[in-house]
Amino acid sequence: MYYNFNEMLNAIRTKTDKKIVAVAAAHDHEVLECATAARKEQIADFILIGNTEKIKEILISLEEDPDTWTMIEETDDAKAALKAVELASEKKADALMKGLLHTSLFLRALFHKEYGLVPPKALVSQVTVAEYTTQHRLVLLTDCAVNVTPNYAEKVQILNNAVSLAHRLGMDCPKVACITPVEVINEKMPETIDAAMLSKANERGQIKGCLVDGPLALDNALCAEAAKAKSIQSPVAGYADILLMPNLCTGNAMDKSLRYFAELKTGSAVIGANVPIIMTSRSDSAQNKLHAIALSVL
Amino acid sequence: MYYNFNEMLNAIRTKTDKKIVAVAAAHDHEVLECATAARKEQIADFILIGNTEKIKEILISLEEDPDTWTMIEETDDAKAALKAVELASEKKADALMKGLLHTSLFLRALFHKEYGLVPPKALVSQVTVAEYTTQHRLVLLTDCAVNVTPNYAEKVQILNNAVSLAHRLGMDCPKVACITPVEVINEKMPETIDAAMLSKANERGQIKGCLVDGPLALDNALCAEAAKAKSIQSPVAGYADILLMPNLCTGNAMDKSLRYFAELKTGSAVIGANVPIIMTSRSDSAQNKLHAIALSVL
Repeated sequence: MYYNFNEMLNAIRTKTDKKIVAVAAAHDHEVLECATAARKEQIADFILIGNTEKIKEILISLEEDPDTWTMIEETDDAKAALKAVELASEKKADALMKGLLHTSLFLRALFHKEYGLVPPKALVSQVTVAEYTTQHRLVLLTDCAVNVTPNYAEKVQILNNAVSLAHRLGMDCPKVACITPVEVINEKMPETIDAAMLSKANERGQIKGCLVDGPLALDNALCAEAAKAKSIQSPVAGYADILLMPNLCTGNAMDKSLRYFAELKTGSAVIGANVPIIMTSRSDSAQNKLHAIALSVL
Repeated sequence: MYYNFNEMLNAIRTKTDKKIVAVAAAHDHEVLECATAARKEQIADFILIGNTEKIKEILISLEEDPDTWTMIEETDDAKAALKAVELASEKKADALMKGLLHTSLFLRALFHKEYGLVPPKALVSQVTVAEYTTQHRLVLLTDCAVNVTPNYAEKVQILNNAVSLAHRLGMDCPKVACITPVEVINEKMPETIDAAMLSKANERGQIKGCLVDGPLALDNALCAEAAKAKSIQSPVAGYADILLMPNLCTGNAMDKSLRYFAELKTGSAVIGANVPIIMTSRSDSAQNKLHAIALSVL
């Protein structure tokens, strides 16, 4: 089990078969800076798809030898995205990374039926992994970026996606807290109803590989004393590994609060498709982008 | 202007007329511990309403002389709450504090028409004040605890309540960011529509005493560089004093994230009635409870 990002990065470094990340529209300084760092850290190898002339220029500015990089010329963004997806579907790439192109173009290629990267019943969701330094462990938050107002069935898939990532991080039976503003059932707060359903579905074996409890407020989920003060009896309360957010609004604010208020190290992954997807934000730090690549090749 | 809680506490200490806090159902160890600390710190004086026998016992256990405290015997919780409200309506108390009784009983007394503490068109809302240590200043979050899914008109009132508190904290023209997951208008995210309305209403002079902008994601609101990366031109972006939350779910998670992930010093106030109200949570630290009392007597 990995307790922080350094342990995870070290584990990836020691693997002999480096994973390959296909970057769609790679002709961007920030994207290449990130790829360069990941390659130097021995986290992944890359196939750079896009305007190869520009890519070479940027690589030289980063003091990299362009001849040591694999490139594919494709100046049309939509086609560059499709090329990346094609490489993944042919198993020539292990992960996809969004470069300098519109998210919609990137996602359209990802969902292109011909390549079958997203099976019909699959749901793609986002997970933020954070180093919860005070407790010396990693904690997962989902979904902070993709699904706006997931219904119950979608929450089950979001939860399952996060659990699969938690397993990769070495958490055998992750504890999942369904986050709500209160720890009691309140029929005026639909998220408390979903939380009860998810919790019971887990108890009945409909959701496996984890331990789910909710509704739980954030304090009860993270702090055993806070849970005790509210007389909550739960193996999850105080020790949650996965925080299932009730909606994107809450997840997004939480994710950003971890970075801007708590200044925790984070990384994010977009999962649920047949390959992991790397979609970092311009405002992410270089280190957090590296963590995102590491999570995707895990 | 106060840049941290210590400055605020010092300013209150130097005032010669101590404010009086009426505590409903004061017979509780944690509540009296908090009152004792506030009195020692010269933040406020108290009228303790409740089971006076128990109150005396607890005070003695806290090494306090019960004879130095003002008490009113009332063992019925509902009546104790009404007594506190009565004292406030008669200007014999400057703030109300919830002790060991159900929130619903406490609020019922507060909204009791006879005492008129909450004018018919007023809206009671909650504000969390946090020491944003990295930027050496205070930041306000609202509403994290009272209004579940405020509509536009209610958001205007929540905003105005927070602005009045910001003025008390010495912020002449606080910058208000309407927090959403994205910084663009997205008709599928109703909070971005409310944010645009609030922003324009401020521009047209319908909301005064502050500078409002939104939709803004949390990173854009707090970090000038993140705002620049998204090409956002706004005097609020990067420097928000007040974070207007789109709903309770988001506000509550954010509030708790400040305490449990970021470990910031916080304090909360319930405002909008004719007197400030102190409703702390059992899981709050003693220091944060002291801040709550200080904010209410400000």
